[in-house]
Amino acid sequence: MEAYFDNSATTRCSDAAVALMQQVLLEDYGNPSSLHMKGVVAEKYIKTATEQIARILKVAEKEIIFTSGGTESNNLALIGVALANQRTGKHIITTSIEHASVYNPLIFLEEQGFEVTYLPVDAQGRISMEALAEAVREDTILVSMMHVNNEIGTIEPIEEAAKLIHEKNPKTLIHVDAIQSFGKLRIYPKRMGIDLLSVSGHKIHGPKGVGFLYVKDKTKIKPIIHGGGQQKNMRSGTENVAGIAGLGAAAEELYQNFDEKIERLYELRDYLVAGMQALEGTTVNGADGRNAAPHIVSVSFAGIRAEVLLHALEERGIYVSTGSACSSNHPAISGTLKAIGVKPELLDSTVRFSLSVESTREEADYVLEQLAELLPMLRRFRRH
Amino acid sequence: MEAYFDNSATTRCSDAAVALMQQVLLEDYGNPSSLHMKGVVAEKYIKTATEQIARILKVAEKEIIFTSGGTESNNLALIGVALANQRTGKHIITTSIEHASVYNPLIFLEEQGFEVTYLPVDAQGRISMEALAEAVREDTILVSMMHVNNEIGTIEPIEEAAKLIHEKNPKTLIHVDAIQSFGKLRIYPKRMGIDLLSVSGHKIHGPKGVGFLYVKDKTKIKPIIHGGGQQKNMRSGTENVAGIAGLGAAAEELYQNFDEKIERLYELRDYLVAGMQALEGTTVNGADGRNAAPHIVSVSFAGIRAEVLLHALEERGIYVSTGSACSSNHPAISGTLKAIGVKPELLDSTVRFSLSVESTREEADYVLEQLAELLPMLRRFRRH
Repeated sequence: MEAYFDNSATTRCSDAAVALMQQVLLEDYGNPSSLHMKGVVAEKYIKTATEQIARILKVAEKEIIFTSGGTESNNLALIGVALANQRTGKHIITTSIEHASVYNPLIFLEEQGFEVTYLPVDAQGRISMEALAEAVREDTILVSMMHVNNEIGTIEPIEEAAKLIHEKNPKTLIHVDAIQSFGKLRIYPKRMGIDLLSVSGHKIHGPKGVGFLYVKDKTKIKPIIHGGGQQKNMRSGTENVAGIAGLGAAAEELYQNFDEKIERLYELRDYLVAGMQALEGTTVNGADGRNAAPHIVSVSFAGIRAEVLLHALEERGIYVSTGSACSSNHPAISGTLKAIGVKPELLDSTVRFSLSVESTREEADYVLEQLAELLPMLRRFRRH
Repeated sequence: MEAYFDNSATTRCSDAAVALMQQVLLEDYGNPSSLHMKGVVAEKYIKTATEQIARILKVAEKEIIFTSGGTESNNLALIGVALANQRTGKHIITTSIEHASVYNPLIFLEEQGFEVTYLPVDAQGRISMEALAEAVREDTILVSMMHVNNEIGTIEPIEEAAKLIHEKNPKTLIHVDAIQSFGKLRIYPKRMGIDLLSVSGHKIHGPKGVGFLYVKDKTKIKPIIHGGGQQKNMRSGTENVAGIAGLGAAAEELYQNFDEKIERLYELRDYLVAGMQALEGTTVNGADGRNAAPHIVSVSFAGIRAEVLLHALEERGIYVSTGSACSSNHPAISGTLKAIGVKPELLDSTVRFSLSVESTREEADYVLEQLAELLPMLRRFRRH
């Protein structure tokens, strides 16, 4: 049996998305900037994907900018907003559990003279509202917060945070890294007070190499990639038509019968969490129940090295990750686990199981069964 | 009959590339950063593509960085080199016939305090060596030149220019936009004295949304997209595995029996040029014979608006472009045509026919035949 429980690292591309991509690559391969019919046909795919996404988020079509993925979306949001608003202020706020694609652009901005405040989180990984209230200043141009943490699945109180920020400084822009939440939660940027929202294609059964950034109309932002002026000059370069079409199709597919799918996914997560807790020497990290996203389960296994467990599971057809597999295979210990106060001896013993809407109860049973068998064996090895 | 003569705007993706992409998207969909087998399998596709490209260019594998396309490659080369070398100098040289994806990053750099010199070109569109020799200074950190002009097909004397630049200032880096030359000419960066070379996938029968930048080992360059540290920290973001695999496959396919293919393409170009010249009121722009790339034919049609001709041809299944279709459909008049001294009244009467290795003599005949019929008709309309 096989159980792919590494869907937060990446997902299988949906059949519908791949079929559409093939059609674009082989038949409707025009350049959307071409004036002739083949260009017009190509442009229509982009228009359709834009409509699909705008409908899901309840935003305007012109508020969607396609990028090469979540990392570029985060870079564009952070660097683009910083460059465009630096005369208003040079202060940015973020949290201490962000992804590297938020941290590293911020480090770049610090080198350019911006000041960044990092908010602490509680034991579940939720941002401290008090710290946030204190941090917002007159010169705070941007707050960047992730919606769902990629390592532990905790849902951040975005709407509440946005309200608080705007009370303190109505001009402060709010960027949300929704790379782990899009396709798992309903997200309405307008209602939630979000100005910019990053999404990646390959986390939602779309292709790799494509994503988008929602940018609220009239938000001051500069492009980070300059050229032929595509996408209203916000992201130059011939559009990745096949990728964009695939992303749109995957998003549309995922949000059909969405509540049912997500309900089922929460049931599966609850089942897996209960099963994990029943195993000896385990700790499930992060928030509980509906305070967590439906697809991420972070578990620390006392006395077992995560990498050893990963490879033992792999031999049995179970694919998981240690900490976050989104970043390159640097052996750095997770910042999120430290930030929520996971005991030092468990930092290196933590595995992430991440589900998709395609995951099944049978797979969960198989994983729990194999863990029950493996854990005592691996602990015995360790002792010798 | 159909004749797609807009291959400089974009090409049809090759069957082999699409088949490989499908395999990656549906079966081998792992994240290359994942530690388990699915990650290892995904990483192998990237390794294979890297090998394929490195072999064609005769460079080291570690010198290839994958990007989201030609525009990003140019941005990374220019902004990345400028940011990394600004303590050495802030002077950059380029030509007056570059693509918007070179111009616009340079304008961005000018705003950041860099100084840019624009070299004139002759009537064929070749850079003036005298002007180049005069332009290189102590503080010149970079010269960026395109290899083949996208509008008229002229081949620039890169090797000669590189020699001259290095005589004047051995520290000056040389970037070449090879987006229109890769897959049409043999390119050996080491022998030609090139430090950075930009390539796009979709111009060579690969997919859109992927490209690469060759960066000579030990070249000082900074990333422009920051995050998880993929590709040795030079380009963060989960790699577009399917796109990269497709690009590698397309490049490999194209460079098989390369000399034969290109010889045949030159014959087809010569045939088309002769046919165009035989039509009344036409001027073929740019360089002749082997001084031009084998795939681009720029023709000015006296007394006819290019856009009108484009749409008339489109109705007969012939797809071409006015000026350069690489940039978005802004109606800006081509900078290249002005730079080579095309008469003002012909600027708006110029059409680009661009071939691929799949183009045929029959298609060329069809295009010439339709033009012979259309041109007098369109000129008559104009007069009324």
